[in-house]
Amino acid sequence: MVNKAKTQRFGFGWSPSQKSSISVSESEQMQWYLVASLLTILTSSQGILTTLSKTNGRYRYDYATVPFLAEVFKLLVSSFLLWKEIQKSPSPKMTTDWKSVRLFPIPSIIYLIHNNVQFATLVYVDASTYQIMGNLKIVTTGMLFRLFLRRKLSNLQWMAIVLLAVGTTMSQVKGCGEASCDSLFSAPIQGYVFGILSACLSALAGIYTEFLMKKNDDTLHWQNVQLYTFGAIFNMARLLLDDFRNEFEKGPWWQRLFNGYSFTTWLVVLNLGSTGLLVSWLMKYADNIVKVYSTSIAMPLTTVLTLFLFDFRPTLQLFLGIVVCMMSLHMYFAPPSMLIDLPKMLNEDSESLLEVYVDRRTDSS
Amino acid sequence: MVNKAKTQRFGFGWSPSQKSSISVSESEQMQWYLVASLLTILTSSQGILTTLSKTNGRYRYDYATVPFLAEVFKLLVSSFLLWKEIQKSPSPKMTTDWKSVRLFPIPSIIYLIHNNVQFATLVYVDASTYQIMGNLKIVTTGMLFRLFLRRKLSNLQWMAIVLLAVGTTMSQVKGCGEASCDSLFSAPIQGYVFGILSACLSALAGIYTEFLMKKNDDTLHWQNVQLYTFGAIFNMARLLLDDFRNEFEKGPWWQRLFNGYSFTTWLVVLNLGSTGLLVSWLMKYADNIVKVYSTSIAMPLTTVLTLFLFDFRPTLQLFLGIVVCMMSLHMYFAPPSMLIDLPKMLNEDSESLLEVYVDRRTDSS
Repeated sequence: MVNKAKTQRFGFGWSPSQKSSISVSESEQMQWYLVASLLTILTSSQGILTTLSKTNGRYRYDYATVPFLAEVFKLLVSSFLLWKEIQKSPSPKMTTDWKSVRLFPIPSIIYLIHNNVQFATLVYVDASTYQIMGNLKIVTTGMLFRLFLRRKLSNLQWMAIVLLAVGTTMSQVKGCGEASCDSLFSAPIQGYVFGILSACLSALAGIYTEFLMKKNDDTLHWQNVQLYTFGAIFNMARLLLDDFRNEFEKGPWWQRLFNGYSFTTWLVVLNLGSTGLLVSWLMKYADNIVKVYSTSIAMPLTTVLTLFLFDFRPTLQLFLGIVVCMMSLHMYFAPPSMLIDLPKMLNEDSESLLEVYVDRRTDSS
Repeated sequence: MVNKAKTQRFGFGWSPSQKSSISVSESEQMQWYLVASLLTILTSSQGILTTLSKTNGRYRYDYATVPFLAEVFKLLVSSFLLWKEIQKSPSPKMTTDWKSVRLFPIPSIIYLIHNNVQFATLVYVDASTYQIMGNLKIVTTGMLFRLFLRRKLSNLQWMAIVLLAVGTTMSQVKGCGEASCDSLFSAPIQGYVFGILSACLSALAGIYTEFLMKKNDDTLHWQNVQLYTFGAIFNMARLLLDDFRNEFEKGPWWQRLFNGYSFTTWLVVLNLGSTGLLVSWLMKYADNIVKVYSTSIAMPLTTVLTLFLFDFRPTLQLFLGIVVCMMSLHMYFAPPSMLIDLPKMLNEDSESLLEVYVDRRTDSS
């Protein structure tokens, strides 16, 4: 009985993965399509903005300050939206007891551990291998989604998730002539173990956030305020820790906070913050798989944008990777009936013409 | 009325693509699985046997004689099987009027044109690009299958066909360090036009053969005898034509027929002949798509076998290509319900345990 009641807690919000059991209004569906598309665009511009924010190939600002400022930006936006919501009646639902609030630093803690595992991985593997292993996150998210959120996926949806990982990986396979390919997958075993651990932690953080967002019907903005308060604190702690490690060589972090910031740097902060807000929204009203699709499809999209901006030569594998990602997207989200139904004859006459044609060919040869 | 009656002619034999409308006995399905698997194995050993039949990297025999002898082998086998069948009662159905027989040289004629287009293509494009363009045949077969045989495919099956082409292409993408990749897709436009024409002709030959095999319920062996008689004649004509072109420099073809033949060369002939017989069987009792899957999956399989035999280094793209081909296979042939149904809870208790686990994590953190 107790278990049954608790199961309900996972059931809030609409999840696109449960499309067969829960009917959704079209406007709701349009809404998450829009948010997911926006997330894809912002994610793919993130890499390009970061590249553009460099001066002569180097950061003239402290990059570690960017995530902190993004957390502050998200906290300000969420606080403002919450304040606006409180003015209105009925006032929004907000659970403020410690038993609930204490869960909100957990995603930050997971990200902190993930960050350190990431550094450990890069000791053993090179950047290309690391990037390619990053695609494992897609599959581990699917697995933890099933395991911890107990969401059911059809065989086809599992295949789609694997294909998404294959497609993004393929688009990253180095073409001939590009350097540093000898080192691919020739790293010591520790590198791969840390890589897999990193993929699991990254997925776990996402899954846990979805659990937090859906566990009750608190307003999104209140949940965000809690999430980002802890996010800002943990980022601050990290900056301080780095200062202690470097024995305050470059002075305390708050003194160099805006040092060397250009207009593009501010765009990077704004972009990272907005991305975070969109992810939160998707976690509450859609799910982790939608988020994974949005950010994964941003990867080949970034490469295509880079081709236009920085005049790269497209590779065959990039093209093949994009085709696979698009197929995967369609396989996961299209209504099953659209996928498996055989086409109906719309125009029997034109079919008959073809028939005659085949037949005439047959008889006159 | 006339059209309706003629439509029936396409309907003979069982086609796996029509699995939703026609129910098939399990033994029949087992049979074509078996034939298709055998075809995959024989096709992938074909490339390896051909390589092994070379002495010091060169053919010591005239390779053009191999397809001719394979046709003769197929003709002998089919004639023998037909003779055995005629002994039995009821005697098999055989349509011998000229209106039917005259259709059987058409596949040979299409292959002859295809052969010449192939040569024209290779004037413009290099061997790697040619090999990669060869995968287009998978997609053109699907299109002609729909267009001329009027067989309906679901969206998912179309996606599977495209993914099969993507998967085989991917497994052929050259890794870094491998030579001759600069030339990939930098050929003049004529090369691509001929490449596409070649893919269409190759598909057309297959589709026409399926039409021939299924247009009436004649016994397979009689159809084969007609097919291979013309096949042998056309191959003989080609050998003679080559002799005239070379002004009988190397003497007439029948004098050098078995010159330099080793045991492996005979295995190549036997293998090519058996492959042809299996394809005929599939054309009558399954369809072109089954054949395309069998021979396409043989491609990455050959590469894997080559890795073991000749000690190559596997590439990431080979692995990704194989994953995509396997997914495609499952998407095309698995029963739709297996693909789209959400899993049922087999063990509610174990699920509840997980639930408690998630919950405990939540409360104790």
